[in-house]
Amino acid sequence: MINSWNTPQPVDFADVRATNLAVVLRYVRSHAPCSRADIAAATGLNKATVSSLVTDLLERRLVRETGLTENRIGRPATMLVLDGSAYAAIGLEVNADYLTAVALDLAGTRLLSWRRSFAGLNVSPGKAVAAVTALARRALTRVTREGRRVLGLTVGVPGLVDAGGLVRVAPNLGWEEVDLRGQLEAALGEARGQPPFPVSVDNDAKLAATAEHRWGAYAGTPNLAYLTGEVGIGAGIITDGRLLRGAHGFTGEIGHVQLDPAGPVCGCGRRGCLEALAGIAGLLRRASPDSFTEGTPTDWEPEIAEVVRRAKAQDKVTLAALTEVGTWLGQGTAVLANVVNPEVIILGGYFVPLAPWLLPPAQEELAQRTLAPDAGGARLVASTFAHEAAATGGAATVLAAVDAGNLPSPPD
Amino acid sequence: MINSWNTPQPVDFADVRATNLAVVLRYVRSHAPCSRADIAAATGLNKATVSSLVTDLLERRLVRETGLTENRIGRPATMLVLDGSAYAAIGLEVNADYLTAVALDLAGTRLLSWRRSFAGLNVSPGKAVAAVTALARRALTRVTREGRRVLGLTVGVPGLVDAGGLVRVAPNLGWEEVDLRGQLEAALGEARGQPPFPVSVDNDAKLAATAEHRWGAYAGTPNLAYLTGEVGIGAGIITDGRLLRGAHGFTGEIGHVQLDPAGPVCGCGRRGCLEALAGIAGLLRRASPDSFTEGTPTDWEPEIAEVVRRAKAQDKVTLAALTEVGTWLGQGTAVLANVVNPEVIILGGYFVPLAPWLLPPAQEELAQRTLAPDAGGARLVASTFAHEAAATGGAATVLAAVDAGNLPSPPD
Repeated sequence: MINSWNTPQPVDFADVRATNLAVVLRYVRSHAPCSRADIAAATGLNKATVSSLVTDLLERRLVRETGLTENRIGRPATMLVLDGSAYAAIGLEVNADYLTAVALDLAGTRLLSWRRSFAGLNVSPGKAVAAVTALARRALTRVTREGRRVLGLTVGVPGLVDAGGLVRVAPNLGWEEVDLRGQLEAALGEARGQPPFPVSVDNDAKLAATAEHRWGAYAGTPNLAYLTGEVGIGAGIITDGRLLRGAHGFTGEIGHVQLDPAGPVCGCGRRGCLEALAGIAGLLRRASPDSFTEGTPTDWEPEIAEVVRRAKAQDKVTLAALTEVGTWLGQGTAVLANVVNPEVIILGGYFVPLAPWLLPPAQEELAQRTLAPDAGGARLVASTFAHEAAATGGAATVLAAVDAGNLPSPPD
Repeated sequence: MINSWNTPQPVDFADVRATNLAVVLRYVRSHAPCSRADIAAATGLNKATVSSLVTDLLERRLVRETGLTENRIGRPATMLVLDGSAYAAIGLEVNADYLTAVALDLAGTRLLSWRRSFAGLNVSPGKAVAAVTALARRALTRVTREGRRVLGLTVGVPGLVDAGGLVRVAPNLGWEEVDLRGQLEAALGEARGQPPFPVSVDNDAKLAATAEHRWGAYAGTPNLAYLTGEVGIGAGIITDGRLLRGAHGFTGEIGHVQLDPAGPVCGCGRRGCLEALAGIAGLLRRASPDSFTEGTPTDWEPEIAEVVRRAKAQDKVTLAALTEVGTWLGQGTAVLANVVNPEVIILGGYFVPLAPWLLPPAQEELAQRTLAPDAGGARLVASTFAHEAAATGGAATVLAAVDAGNLPSPPD
């Protein structure tokens, strides 16, 4: 029986059918290639019901029949797989120095992955929204031209996002109370005003944690935390296999826990926050002060590449700076270990190329500062995603909605 | 339909019956007095099935019939209520300066609530376990003499407790790797070795949060945190209506997050932890230094009463100490607000009588240090439980196991 999904309980016939369609779709996702008989045997639905459900999924182009047949006694069974060709799920991310876009097909195969440098720190919220919209349009055009229908679009933002897609505060973009979802819907809408697919906005770290939990090196780990490694640091936390949202979605703001009362001023206006000490701007100020001779850089990627080069060359200032930042990261992740006890804490973004130097001091500090022995079992590792984790997570949430039963309508 | 409970799915007939018995029991718990017809209408079970299930629950003495009848057309229906007379659930707590015991009947009515002062800081783990066992025996004797069967016994401990009831570390009891559950089972067992009811051990803050979530002033709040206010400070965290346990049960150790690198040495050996700054011993050292002239007190209650008296008399040293401790509490609770975004943070234990002086500076600091506006919606309040929160939560977990379908066997 497939029964461990947290789907809503059916209340009437239409809901029962939607629920059963989703049950079959999820079974095909995890067991393809499989036959109608396999589905009936595994789900407990009778064969006639399964046939009818599969016909519906075939019409919606969510599954397709393959030429494969099962090697068994009796009439050969036609095997089913997910149909990757008809749909696309789109994820975007806006951050202080880049925009990313990812599109996935129904099976999770990547259709596109773009990264654009973007001077998020220097532009107004209006211009930033226009840049996000332009990138979204390009991604939509690309997948539509391939004949795909868009299942949904989700944007990650490094800040507090409420359930309605309103960005309450994004310190490193200089945003306050920006209705990104509303503005995107208006811009992407057609004549009647609404785009023909759901648009949503979420915190970047939460989306990245979702991507890690679904497809990362520690996929399926029930208790997992992901730390963004950008100008800002935020955590996406999975507990008991579910994203931790708290009362209003404002969880994981580990970047604004004060670690050093005498530390530098943070983008949020407070002093000595983790992200002021260990965020990428803070790291560069220590490791590579000459990066700032012509003002704050707007593209950090070449600066980080330079830090990696110097670290490999055993430059003492660089190595000392990386050790110090690693130690702060250990202190910050120890707060997560003490409060939410994850099995793994994954460092993302710019921390990934710097991980060889950041992880050893961070692991030592994490273990020392966690009350539970061995950091409560928490492993500290680098992400296998680069900067596309949040955008990938955005697309993953679109696919998760389909899996939960929000199926696209059949073609006219 | 009653279907939102996270009960395991039935896999065979015996499980279906156990699940349905639990469904009926929970319905009676929340809707008593109610008739068999009410149960059938609400649960979707047919009337014959409900009758059979109710007969079983009557035989197990979990529900009883009342003289009440429903005022309706046709044959009058006999009304059912929970049977409070046949069973008892027992919760205990061991802490640095006291032991508590609470017994509840099936309906959650308190049968006994005891508090004993206990020099936990000065006795060996072996003597402490003997003291807990003696208190457990007295509680068992009391409820057994009333003709009750014991449904289970749960003990709260201020430390890291793993899933098997092994206390890994309890800094303020001086315990390391103490198998409290195993020792209690051995001591309370009869001739054949095992007591005739389940014994479990859990972290005190987790049990207290469970009690708050079930019966406190903010019962049912989906995202809630409880802070123990003893020599140690630990948090019990409820997220999305469920206790946050993390990978190994080592969540909520907010007391060992470092707030002041130059702060006093903590019981855990580190420096400047929240509990070293704002735990009751730390508080008394500031507010009432003369409490320590004859060594560390073993009973804190009269000392706290003296602090309350001095605060009411506007003693300047006392008021300044309470403001400072309140400020540290605000900083500690801001870590919870930033990481898990609760709707309410409840201060328990000795913080309750001191709340009039601790809450105002704590609330101010909490709001200032949380990234989300208005502390992410988190209200900071004092518990309506006194020191019996953890023991009450221990008994609550016993009742929750019954509600989930672990019903006592019918009498022979």
